[in-house]
Amino acid sequence: MTPLPTHVRIVEVGPRDGLQNEPGTIPTETKLAFIRALVEAGLRDIESTSFVSPRAIPQLADALEVARGLPAAPGVTFSALVPNEKGLERAIDAGIRRIAVFTAASDAFTMKNINMTIDESLATFRPVVAAATKAGMSVRGYVSSAFVCPYQGDVAADRVRDVCTRLLDLGVDEVAVSDTIGAASPRDVLETVGLLLKTLPREKIALHFHDTYGTALANVLAGLQLGVTTFDASAGGLGGCPYAPGASGNLATEDLLYMLDRMGIQTGVDLGKVVTAAEVIARCLNHPLASRQSQRLRGPGRAS
Amino acid sequence: MTPLPTHVRIVEVGPRDGLQNEPGTIPTETKLAFIRALVEAGLRDIESTSFVSPRAIPQLADALEVARGLPAAPGVTFSALVPNEKGLERAIDAGIRRIAVFTAASDAFTMKNINMTIDESLATFRPVVAAATKAGMSVRGYVSSAFVCPYQGDVAADRVRDVCTRLLDLGVDEVAVSDTIGAASPRDVLETVGLLLKTLPREKIALHFHDTYGTALANVLAGLQLGVTTFDASAGGLGGCPYAPGASGNLATEDLLYMLDRMGIQTGVDLGKVVTAAEVIARCLNHPLASRQSQRLRGPGRAS
Repeated sequence: MTPLPTHVRIVEVGPRDGLQNEPGTIPTETKLAFIRALVEAGLRDIESTSFVSPRAIPQLADALEVARGLPAAPGVTFSALVPNEKGLERAIDAGIRRIAVFTAASDAFTMKNINMTIDESLATFRPVVAAATKAGMSVRGYVSSAFVCPYQGDVAADRVRDVCTRLLDLGVDEVAVSDTIGAASPRDVLETVGLLLKTLPREKIALHFHDTYGTALANVLAGLQLGVTTFDASAGGLGGCPYAPGASGNLATEDLLYMLDRMGIQTGVDLGKVVTAAEVIARCLNHPLASRQSQRLRGPGRAS
Repeated sequence: MTPLPTHVRIVEVGPRDGLQNEPGTIPTETKLAFIRALVEAGLRDIESTSFVSPRAIPQLADALEVARGLPAAPGVTFSALVPNEKGLERAIDAGIRRIAVFTAASDAFTMKNINMTIDESLATFRPVVAAATKAGMSVRGYVSSAFVCPYQGDVAADRVRDVCTRLLDLGVDEVAVSDTIGAASPRDVLETVGLLLKTLPREKIALHFHDTYGTALANVLAGLQLGVTTFDASAGGLGGCPYAPGASGNLATEDLLYMLDRMGIQTGVDLGKVVTAAEVIARCLNHPLASRQSQRLRGPGRAS
């Protein structure tokens, strides 16, 4: 075990991974108010929207309007998911400077999700990453179902390493190793991420956990013990994965912050202000927020 | 770090620590059906009730009836909380063979909770433990607020060790080091329990976590990494602490089991049957269960 890190970088994915799975339509201005509140809370990496087909994810059909309405915020990186070259063009038009591409460690998952094999997805991303890099943008790569695939079961660690390595070879500067359905345990993290770190640089690994079974913070602890310093989270515990049966929300940013704050690990992010940011969105949802912080603030014994 | 344990013993505290903080009255027969379902799930240590004053905790006023109605279950230990000699007499009358006594690592907490200093509580327990031992019973000791006190703040690790040591000297065979308000982080566990293990036998330490901030499973992981093999949990995530502001439910037994199962750590307990047991009680509550398993089974995007 390496010593625990002293600083952690949080990548806030609520506006994209969170909102893409929330039912109903949230007004663009509310999304922008949410994003402004996240900036105000001290978050410096905010995945803001996704330039996917509005037919596939109608919740993010206003990607262009969101991207154009992002606040002027020095030091903050607003990224957007981009599925293909057409999406990249739209992102460039909108002034986005960092994109994310999305594949998985399981062919069954990519087939259901983006109707391609992993190989086909990487072939699709090659020109996207090249064009983005040429345009001066940076690129993150998601590796979904990196521990358990909802269609195929357990995913072998060397399979994950292979996909991560190929993404980094394409030119992404970070791979987000993702427990898309929230099924991983700390042992999975120690084994799979431990294997990745034997050949891949630690600073290029981000961990992305969902809290379906309540293991997300235990998995973060395992990641911290391996020396990983970048973790994704979603304010309010918003979202999930529309293609993954049983997936519940992302790890809540405020729950991650509670643990890191209490452990003395610096993030530069204000927990109370993240709770405030999540409340901006909560008013538009037809269900309570999933974060423990919001459950606690609602008080014990209440039905919602 | 020691290797992770291969087996863990779960002490089910739902019928006592869970139900003592649930509002409303649950019929004795429902409690007994709950306990029978817990036995059916494979739990072998079940804290069944508390012989405290019915005025203090009316939810457990039927302690005698519960104890007398416990099923014949070879290999299962049904314990009960006992606050004083009078409670011990009632427990003996009811045929209980294992009791638990309750103090804390913070005087502010014991004063608010049982109106005694820690020293006074230990003086009260001395004859209780002696009489119980003489009657052939075994005794567990709770050390509440072992990491953070809701009235006094952070609790020093050597203070916890002192109380644990004195309890063991009195004759208890196990101390349950308890994060009563669920505020601890894994760093707290590594530091405090790490210190305990320098002088106290590992097999006499149990860890008791609440999940107020979502850190309970991360704290379990830290405990496992220290080699601890006994963890308390409450089916359905029932309960909390009526005297501790902000305390939410205990770590849910099914959430603990999910993580341990996934890590390949044996418990002898069937997760699905624990969910079934929790449903027996859920029908009598006016709020949804707090466990991630029950939230997941209710499905995403539902309001309760």
